[in-house]
Amino acid sequence: MPFTRISLRPGYSDAQLARISDILQQCLEAEFAVPPRDRFQIFEELPPGRHVFDRHYKSNGRSDNFIQFHILAGKPRTLEQKQNFCRLLCERLHAALAIHPDDVMVMIRFNTADDWSFSQGRMLSEEV
Amino acid sequence: MPFTRISLRPGYSDAQLARISDILQQCLEAEFAVPPRDRFQIFEELPPGRHVFDRHYKSNGRSDNFIQFHILAGKPRTLEQKQNFCRLLCERLHAALAIHPDDVMVMIRFNTADDWSFSQGRMLSEEV
Amino acid sequence: MPFTRISLRPGYSDAQLARISDILQQCLEAEFAVPPRDRFQIFEELPPGRHVFDRHYKSNGRSDNFIQFHILAGKPRTLEQKQNFCRLLCERLHAALAIHPDDVMVMIRFNTADDWSFSQGRMLSEEV
Repeated sequence: MPFTRISLRPGYSDAQLARISDILQQCLEAEFAVPPRDRFQIFEELPPGRHVFDRHYKSNGRSDNFIQFHILAGKPRTLEQKQNFCRLLCERLHAALAIHPDDVMVMIRFNTADDWSFSQGRMLSEEV
Repeated sequence: MPFTRISLRPGYSDAQLARISDILQQCLEAEFAVPPRDRFQIFEELPPGRHVFDRHYKSNGRSDNFIQFHILAGKPRTLEQKQNFCRLLCERLHAALAIHPDDVMVMIRFNTADDWSFSQGRMLSEEV
Repeated sequence: MPFTRISLRPGYSDAQLARISDILQQCLEAEFAVPPRDRFQIFEELPPGRHVFDRHYKSNGRSDNFIQFHILAGKPRTLEQKQNFCRLLCERLHAALAIHPDDVMVMIRFNTADDWSFSQGRMLSEEV
């Protein structure tokens, strides 16, 4: 059920974006109990001057690789789940793509299953 | 009061985008009790690889015509209103633009009238 | 903690976008008690036909300069804070950039400190 918008610099190859997509999905499955094929993402590449961020606020130092994950999820998660998800996401982005944990920002919002229709005008809560 | 972001493939003509805009507005007026001129929308056209979605999760099959509606509304709606809205939206998109109901995804979020300022720095709840 | 998406017409210079960024940040610091370096913004420039808005709904008249601020904040603000923020934002945009208050729309959403990770996979509520 989650939908994620990923805001990042231009210049990543299609293969690198696909790698970020896979890592995000793996972390959501591992820590947010998301089903395997429940994958919905938008990548938004922002030219210079369109992605404004402080280089040091609550980070040891952000670079041009700064990346934001805006997640909308349909049911609540515990603080522990959020912690584990964010830590795993940082670890895997670092290992696979050399995106530094200082460059990774996550914002999560929640609504309810009544607020999602995946297709055919059926609300998720109608599907049993 | 609703604001809607519509995420879709490139390639629609201006006339087709205007048709989608009209249909969305008609459905919001019919099923969400939105006033006639309360129309605020953003169309976001996503190149290949930037709109990531599973082709089959809770759908009979998504195509490149996959379209997402991200709605922010200022007061709650009932489940029945949401159901009716989503069904009508699917019906009309199919009839007018051959966008298949399997390709239509809707996500709704809510805040309050205190959270909207339409102009001049006045919050909506100040306007009587 | 706030994150703001600013949706506006193309054609502003880098210097003008930086001025809008500064004004927004000053207003958030003055009226929303946001710390000085807590600045996170995305500018989204929308071509004709992609930014759909009624020219008169709850406004004395919108022009092509119509600008929307979509704010996500991590803790609640009072109605008075929201009023003061929106008024100051309108005043300063008008004074500095001749963006008319009739052209300024603000939408605010809230989540919690548990929903933000600024870097290194740490949730904001873990940082004391």
